[in-house]
Amino acid sequence: MKRTLISAAALMACVLTMQAQQRNEIQVPDLDGYITLKCDFHTHTVYSDGLVWPTVRMEEAYREGLDAISLTEHIEYRPHKDIVADHNRSYEISQKKAKSLNLILLRGSEITRSMPPGHFNAIYLNDSNPLEQDNWRDAFKEAKKQNAFIFWNHPGWDKQQPDTTLWWKEHTELYEGGYMHGIEVANGSLFVPEAIKWCLEKNLTMLGTSDIHQPIQVNYDFAKGEHRTMTFVFAKERSAEGIREALENRRTAVYYRDVVVARKDLMLPFFEKCVDIKEVKRTDKAVTLQIVNKTDLPLKLKKTAHDTSLVYFRNYVLQPHTKHTLTIKFENGIKGGDMNFEVTNLLVDVNKGLDYTIKL
Amino acid sequence: MKRTLISAAALMACVLTMQAQQRNEIQVPDLDGYITLKCDFHTHTVYSDGLVWPTVRMEEAYREGLDAISLTEHIEYRPHKDIVADHNRSYEISQKKAKSLNLILLRGSEITRSMPPGHFNAIYLNDSNPLEQDNWRDAFKEAKKQNAFIFWNHPGWDKQQPDTTLWWKEHTELYEGGYMHGIEVANGSLFVPEAIKWCLEKNLTMLGTSDIHQPIQVNYDFAKGEHRTMTFVFAKERSAEGIREALENRRTAVYYRDVVVARKDLMLPFFEKCVDIKEVKRTDKAVTLQIVNKTDLPLKLKKTAHDTSLVYFRNYVLQPHTKHTLTIKFENGIKGGDMNFEVTNLLVDVNKGLDYTIKL
Amino acid sequence: MKRTLISAAALMACVLTMQAQQRNEIQVPDLDGYITLKCDFHTHTVYSDGLVWPTVRMEEAYREGLDAISLTEHIEYRPHKDIVADHNRSYEISQKKAKSLNLILLRGSEITRSMPPGHFNAIYLNDSNPLEQDNWRDAFKEAKKQNAFIFWNHPGWDKQQPDTTLWWKEHTELYEGGYMHGIEVANGSLFVPEAIKWCLEKNLTMLGTSDIHQPIQVNYDFAKGEHRTMTFVFAKERSAEGIREALENRRTAVYYRDVVVARKDLMLPFFEKCVDIKEVKRTDKAVTLQIVNKTDLPLKLKKTAHDTSLVYFRNYVLQPHTKHTLTIKFENGIKGGDMNFEVTNLLVDVNKGLDYTIKL
Amino acid sequence: MKRTLISAAALMACVLTMQAQQRNEIQVPDLDGYITLKCDFHTHTVYSDGLVWPTVRMEEAYREGLDAISLTEHIEYRPHKDIVADHNRSYEISQKKAKSLNLILLRGSEITRSMPPGHFNAIYLNDSNPLEQDNWRDAFKEAKKQNAFIFWNHPGWDKQQPDTTLWWKEHTELYEGGYMHGIEVANGSLFVPEAIKWCLEKNLTMLGTSDIHQPIQVNYDFAKGEHRTMTFVFAKERSAEGIREALENRRTAVYYRDVVVARKDLMLPFFEKCVDIKEVKRTDKAVTLQIVNKTDLPLKLKKTAHDTSLVYFRNYVLQPHTKHTLTIKFENGIKGGDMNFEVTNLLVDVNKGLDYTIKL
Repeated sequence: MKRTLISAAALMACVLTMQAQQRNEIQVPDLDGYITLKCDFHTHTVYSDGLVWPTVRMEEAYREGLDAISLTEHIEYRPHKDIVADHNRSYEISQKKAKSLNLILLRGSEITRSMPPGHFNAIYLNDSNPLEQDNWRDAFKEAKKQNAFIFWNHPGWDKQQPDTTLWWKEHTELYEGGYMHGIEVANGSLFVPEAIKWCLEKNLTMLGTSDIHQPIQVNYDFAKGEHRTMTFVFAKERSAEGIREALENRRTAVYYRDVVVARKDLMLPFFEKCVDIKEVKRTDKAVTLQIVNKTDLPLKLKKTAHDTSLVYFRNYVLQPHTKHTLTIKFENGIKGGDMNFEVTNLLVDVNKGLDYTIKL
Repeated sequence: MKRTLISAAALMACVLTMQAQQRNEIQVPDLDGYITLKCDFHTHTVYSDGLVWPTVRMEEAYREGLDAISLTEHIEYRPHKDIVADHNRSYEISQKKAKSLNLILLRGSEITRSMPPGHFNAIYLNDSNPLEQDNWRDAFKEAKKQNAFIFWNHPGWDKQQPDTTLWWKEHTELYEGGYMHGIEVANGSLFVPEAIKWCLEKNLTMLGTSDIHQPIQVNYDFAKGEHRTMTFVFAKERSAEGIREALENRRTAVYYRDVVVARKDLMLPFFEKCVDIKEVKRTDKAVTLQIVNKTDLPLKLKKTAHDTSLVYFRNYVLQPHTKHTLTIKFENGIKGGDMNFEVTNLLVDVNKGLDYTIKL
Repeated sequence: MKRTLISAAALMACVLTMQAQQRNEIQVPDLDGYITLKCDFHTHTVYSDGLVWPTVRMEEAYREGLDAISLTEHIEYRPHKDIVADHNRSYEISQKKAKSLNLILLRGSEITRSMPPGHFNAIYLNDSNPLEQDNWRDAFKEAKKQNAFIFWNHPGWDKQQPDTTLWWKEHTELYEGGYMHGIEVANGSLFVPEAIKWCLEKNLTMLGTSDIHQPIQVNYDFAKGEHRTMTFVFAKERSAEGIREALENRRTAVYYRDVVVARKDLMLPFFEKCVDIKEVKRTDKAVTLQIVNKTDLPLKLKKTAHDTSLVYFRNYVLQPHTKHTLTIKFENGIKGGDMNFEVTNLLVDVNKGLDYTIKL
Repeated sequence: MKRTLISAAALMACVLTMQAQQRNEIQVPDLDGYITLKCDFHTHTVYSDGLVWPTVRMEEAYREGLDAISLTEHIEYRPHKDIVADHNRSYEISQKKAKSLNLILLRGSEITRSMPPGHFNAIYLNDSNPLEQDNWRDAFKEAKKQNAFIFWNHPGWDKQQPDTTLWWKEHTELYEGGYMHGIEVANGSLFVPEAIKWCLEKNLTMLGTSDIHQPIQVNYDFAKGEHRTMTFVFAKERSAEGIREALENRRTAVYYRDVVVARKDLMLPFFEKCVDIKEVKRTDKAVTLQIVNKTDLPLKLKKTAHDTSLVYFRNYVLQPHTKHTLTIKFENGIKGGDMNFEVTNLLVDVNKGLDYTIKL
């Protein structure tokens, strides 16, 4: 029954036609000295409970402009019983396709346990198989032994944290033992504000991932300009090693819907690279600025405390890839001043956007 | 290695949330006495060389407004070696989901041979396993023994017919032996005009199928209004039996891009149900018609031989779901006449649209 | 120079073809005893500072599923000097088109003054011309004399209220004199929370309008599912009089992006008509609900104070036109309880969604 | 009644905010020595029978990636009686906006007469007013006196040519008198094959135009990837003079839906700039090519007469911005040969695509 008729297989392959669909580059700026790599470190295929063949994830990643991806199959949950394979297979099957599409493919797995400690991803593994352990502590030990980068997945998931996003004592144990290097601030459609606070307090890396199980288009409507939840990694070079170095030094941003979350020291230069601001006219009564948003991101400005003699917008949205001419009026004889605003969708803390001042 | 940790599996299922996405009904008319069912009798999953899990095909079919579908895995070509299963599995796995979404799921398989005779689908099978045979004639015999409905797939496929769409003597053998009941006129992006001619000459059923291997959104851009290639079945009732009766009596239409192909005796009432035409004003010099296109189809009208004293459009497109007011002028003292046109995208033969006359 | 060659004009009209594009009905529920009419009482054309011909506004309204519209040209600001006409012309020009598209067209004008009192719309006028007055108080008097329905436009517009949304003493004068019947809670992309508070406190009608000047597609991306800002009017009948009666009795809701704002006594039945909720299974351990969202609106649910033995979602989004199966677990021996949540995008006050309880 | 209150006008302008929407560059190649400019020489505004203000046409052109535009108001048909202005006004009103958006704006007018000779556009005028003449011959004389570039509009328009696209003796008169320099091959949704033939036979310039009257989004669905009908001008420099030189030397292509029409000597290098073709592997049995389509155009290849020992596709579509790997098999001992095909949507004559050969 399992025999394959060789001649038929040969027939199918005789005139191979491979078509790569259009790649849509995500347009956000690099920082001085760093390349901004777009990464998704949490995805699934039919090799655990996902619904697509592993190579589909590579083609999706290519089309969406990703640089790096990991197929993090559940170690402990593999409901598709007809698929008989060890824990490394989806990685192995995808390597050739990843290479042909110039994608960085990281070997990873999801340690899938009830709370505490919940689900964790380990990436940069050499072999996923030893992570299959009865006791969860042994799985973490094995991951650490392989020098994996380990992060806590969806800490606010209501199926495991039905009322509050709690930090359990087991998380302290993992954190103090060097088994936790980052936390997901966003996972698919789930946003976890508590994770921002914990990452800032405990010096952990902020991550955004898709945790995609379906064909990607089921969860995201690309025709509406939606994008998968992902991590921007500010890396010294476009390589697995480059990403690892950046992850260890917490140079990441989380890209979730039209929000970016990052540490303030990264967000400030990021915003400044997003826009070109120049003064195009000045009189005694007003100054006129031209502002260009060079990115795919809307930038939502909200006026903050300021001298009311300087008259400008209360709220202003710089839509992606648009050019704006703004006139700021001088009243009561002033000749300049500080134009203060918060960029409310570039978060540097829980519910706190980046503060910015244009000196006029 | 293959053991599954029960507790983790249980955990995942504890608060089940199933979400059915929006179903988009395809808006084309029923005929008097018949319901128009939207059917795709040719699809693949990871159980042969497809790239999605079988249940994904059910959700796709639901979203796209299909009534019936068949997963027709290749019998002789199953490249995903980690999947260990017999030929009935993708059907079995999908039954529950199909039922919950009120889809008619037909058991089918693709007999996958080099040319001649090429690839054929057998649907309405009881058991796909016996179709695995060394000799292709034995596979067809088994399908016939199970009373399958059998049709020739993509006869114009250039990988098997590199220069011309040929009818081989083996096709005569199958046709005369009662092993061929229909032919694909369209398969995915492939259109095969020769199949229209053969179906009309030999009294075979015309079929349109997607032959989808990828997640459906990879091949069709629904945001642009595209739809999968499919078959309209004019059935007495919405059931597997209803579809079978219609297939055997050749009451089908092929829906490919913005073209519909059907026998003339079906196309004429189909067109008349697509539009509402009424006279809203008449003078000695002109008559004014209101025409409503009630369907998702554009209807492309092209003037044919006519009395030139009756002055109307040369080409006119009734876009989907639009209302039109047309004034036809009477010259040289005429008071009426025949407004003749061809509906160029409702094909009743090779390169031949439906001819229609509005008597004024 | 101004002469028109009659023969050419006649030529153009000889075979008239009018095409109405597809109308997209906005799918939100009616209330018991009331029809939900979709209305935009604030738009502009080339007859003031808008950029389209008046009939374009009718076709836009038809396509977007509106029931009623008003062209509220500025009385005091008409920059297009080549257009020589009185203040009633855009209304008059549009009547025939409105009628053919079955739209309710209300005569209106915008009293356009510096702050205070700012801009106000007067609709249900008999003649717009007498509103042209040197003193703004005279314009309001004239509008009242004609029994107009008068509302304050965009009270939070930063060009007139650069730092805070103020209620001036002139507004008290207008309010107390019976010259202000409603306030815009939303105007195009501007949302004014203060207006919600004022409408609730002072028993005024809440309005949402587009204030569109451009071709509508410049400001709204319909391919992304966006809609113009508008007012839902819960009317006893679909007529100008029906709308007037509802406006006077404050039976409106503001539809802005994916937010609806309305008084609580209207919002509660509105929500209950949006969804079908039924219990499909019950055991000692859990109850399963099926919830269908029948509308174009997402419904964003957020758990509120509850018995933690009843285990359900923390946040849950019912996307438009989707069906959901939710299982709520019973722990600690309970057999039922109150499933409490807030519908965070159905606002009944400033930053306050509708509270709802499903008794299990 | 016509007085404007100055203070209100001043108020509106006090904090000017101008926003330019995103420009979508049309990606087609330049030719060696020439820049490909995207041009629309036939549009209307409220100053004749169009439905938008002139500046709207500038913003549309900018967003759609045009380089040059002309507002060609009808001289003889101006139904909007409230607009009191001479024939130059829409050009004058638009100049500032055109300049700020870096668009080349050409002064033009449409001579609008019954057939014969029908409608003609004159562009590169100095003054449109003298074209208002009782006799159409005088209008053409005036245009020629001003050294205008003159072309015949929509010769296949059924309202003027109800049954056949005729060339009247008046067209011979105009052509021989130097009053006709080009013909519209495509006008909006109308395609005129006869115009291709005439342009080739008589050495006239082929043009494609939108003839847009509505807001552009009413006629084109940009979310579906549609574009307005336009002319590609292969110019030595991006300037009004550069375009004029190219028009006079017939270096144009017509861009209509997914079809491009051009003279063969332009189309051949155009196609070669559209694609990158390289051999990536060769054995005794096959050669593998990588083909990249770098443009917004699909390229539809259809095999033509060839040595059947060279086995390749029958039809193949290179979708926009995709990369393809094609393997061509050698049978019967051949080691190479000519891979012949027609690019069916790059027309070089009526119903005739560009023939091309890849030597293997």
